[in-house]
Amino acid sequence: MRKSCSIVALLTDFGLRDHYVGTMKAAMLSIEPSLRILDVTHDVQPQNVRQASYVLWATYRYFPKKTLFVCVVDPGVGTSRRIVVIRTPKWTFLAPDNGVLDLVLSEEMLETAIAVDLNRVKRDALIPAVISSTFHGRDIFAPLAAHIARGRKLDSLGDPVELATVKPAFVSERTPHVCPSILHIDRFGNIVTNISGANLDFLARSVRGIGVRRKAITRWIQSYESAPAKTPCLLLGSNGLVEIAVKMGNAADLLSVDLATPLRILRK
Amino acid sequence: MRKSCSIVALLTDFGLRDHYVGTMKAAMLSIEPSLRILDVTHDVQPQNVRQASYVLWATYRYFPKKTLFVCVVDPGVGTSRRIVVIRTPKWTFLAPDNGVLDLVLSEEMLETAIAVDLNRVKRDALIPAVISSTFHGRDIFAPLAAHIARGRKLDSLGDPVELATVKPAFVSERTPHVCPSILHIDRFGNIVTNISGANLDFLARSVRGIGVRRKAITRWIQSYESAPAKTPCLLLGSNGLVEIAVKMGNAADLLSVDLATPLRILRK
Amino acid sequence: MRKSCSIVALLTDFGLRDHYVGTMKAAMLSIEPSLRILDVTHDVQPQNVRQASYVLWATYRYFPKKTLFVCVVDPGVGTSRRIVVIRTPKWTFLAPDNGVLDLVLSEEMLETAIAVDLNRVKRDALIPAVISSTFHGRDIFAPLAAHIARGRKLDSLGDPVELATVKPAFVSERTPHVCPSILHIDRFGNIVTNISGANLDFLARSVRGIGVRRKAITRWIQSYESAPAKTPCLLLGSNGLVEIAVKMGNAADLLSVDLATPLRILRK
Repeated sequence: MRKSCSIVALLTDFGLRDHYVGTMKAAMLSIEPSLRILDVTHDVQPQNVRQASYVLWATYRYFPKKTLFVCVVDPGVGTSRRIVVIRTPKWTFLAPDNGVLDLVLSEEMLETAIAVDLNRVKRDALIPAVISSTFHGRDIFAPLAAHIARGRKLDSLGDPVELATVKPAFVSERTPHVCPSILHIDRFGNIVTNISGANLDFLARSVRGIGVRRKAITRWIQSYESAPAKTPCLLLGSNGLVEIAVKMGNAADLLSVDLATPLRILRK
Repeated sequence: MRKSCSIVALLTDFGLRDHYVGTMKAAMLSIEPSLRILDVTHDVQPQNVRQASYVLWATYRYFPKKTLFVCVVDPGVGTSRRIVVIRTPKWTFLAPDNGVLDLVLSEEMLETAIAVDLNRVKRDALIPAVISSTFHGRDIFAPLAAHIARGRKLDSLGDPVELATVKPAFVSERTPHVCPSILHIDRFGNIVTNISGANLDFLARSVRGIGVRRKAITRWIQSYESAPAKTPCLLLGSNGLVEIAVKMGNAADLLSVDLATPLRILRK
Repeated sequence: MRKSCSIVALLTDFGLRDHYVGTMKAAMLSIEPSLRILDVTHDVQPQNVRQASYVLWATYRYFPKKTLFVCVVDPGVGTSRRIVVIRTPKWTFLAPDNGVLDLVLSEEMLETAIAVDLNRVKRDALIPAVISSTFHGRDIFAPLAAHIARGRKLDSLGDPVELATVKPAFVSERTPHVCPSILHIDRFGNIVTNISGANLDFLARSVRGIGVRRKAITRWIQSYESAPAKTPCLLLGSNGLVEIAVKMGNAADLLSVDLATPLRILRK
């Protein structure tokens, strides 16, 4: 069968402690043994759809054309929430319709959007007849991914669907009133904000710094090295977003910040 | 050489913090560069054979036919404990003879069981002449796995062996007096018990709930969504075992439970 | 194009919580889709070059000939620290020139050592025109690795470079005055020292034990099994270094030790 996706990229909140990720891969390879599977990460905070959306957005553009992204961060597992397949000119995405694709959709042009019809794919024996209510990664996402990667036509999986309009997520010149917030805290303790650094003039003109709790962070640096010790600084991160970082240290620990901590933009 | 195992699936308690898993894979690929290696998990609790047995049991049936499972959870490394190779009609298993295969063996038909003869495989240059006393994963399991996956006849590795009879491990209609216990706590804090949900009539008839410390958990739900907030509930898990779960929360934390915490079946 | 490296082995301090490792792999596969990528580990302590050097040394010899090792533990990211490519008769190494290759270089013969000329590889379109200041793994190391693995001549990447002489790192008969220290603490709590066990006569003759804080550890065992319970013992580890271990326990926890804790050799 024609292979339409060269790589399947997995993004989940399953962690690596259990057999869940291995079982998903096993289920895929049982259908299509030649699949190439790549892990984005499996350590999204459990059920944190927003963080998953950021992580996917931060990485997807670096994957080869035709990669199929399978995103299983799915607090609604076992309910009637929809599962969607989205195709853009370069990539395909399979995910619950819960916002995990929002940041990608805000930047990509849609070619196809299908809501998976579970009865139809079950009737066509693409997924098992009996589905658990807690592990759709194994029972639905993995087999569908394998079939899509083998070249299965998307319109055979369900009906076209209109997706909800995605609201702007980044603070930028055109969307200055988006609420500033923390998208991600990385392993080094760097705090990734939703403030776009795409237009540095805009930042220079109108943003004095970022307020976190009672702290005002106003010092801009170019790289970690050039930062003063033990001082939280602002930095243009590798994905074009403003980050708060501490040289050779952990900004999130130093500022006692977690994903839910609110931010304030200190305007000039 | 004829390839007899398409996939090698690795299950260890080595974690991913050290180079141990990477080194095992390197040692395998040095012998057979075309191997396909899949991780089940490497985060079994150190030396917890029983948990490893559960994890293997929970996933093995989803792997393609001919998968070779290599299970290195091995508190007896460096002693004279046996290493066995087991073949069933669909799969092959390589592991220390310490009970890690018990749950699988309780369900599968044996075709072959061989106790590895270390002198013989050393003489045949299948494993290195010098073996460390602490890293048999690298020095014994990895090279044996590569040779088995390449098609090496099992009976050239040692002599047939009678395995000890496996005692029933699950509480079920036929084995109601097996001691109820916790097999696994997953990354979401779901508590996986050894109580079989295969016969729901039996459960409905005779089990009122599960006692954990001073708590009686008696509320059954179909999926996480349908659960009341912050309340530990009973659920038929994705492997057919009864689980204790909390909607959008962590049951193990809420109940202060670890793998050693005893359970009580509350009978009707 | 001729494939010169069959396997790319990745060693970083990126962890698996973020998308960093997945993005590096994606960037490599976008250039050379047939690459085989193996993880050594990504859980080196953030920016701990010395530990990374140990981990690389402990594993590299088990990898197939022609493996390309890519080591991104890089506190100097974004500064003018050099990036080097080293070729030995069997392997190739790509890393920042910060000491991460020291232990390997102390044992291997150099065939080629090149300092990467970033202007040249940018001009030749081997790496992107715009480079982030914080994620050279994605923007420099990954694309260079893919090109090297495809067979790119090393001397097209920069000019030959003289590497600093590597100081002895292990305490041994020939280098008895190297300062004893902890190279690594593994997932089981085993404490790996820099004391060579290659010459057991030397150890037997002159080393009575190891002092850690106020404890003198003097009991030698052959394997974990033969150890008395709850007692830190000395053991020849799987890489030929002396380790401090506790049977079925965690030596580092028991002794309250971390990577920075000093050791003393108790001489006879």
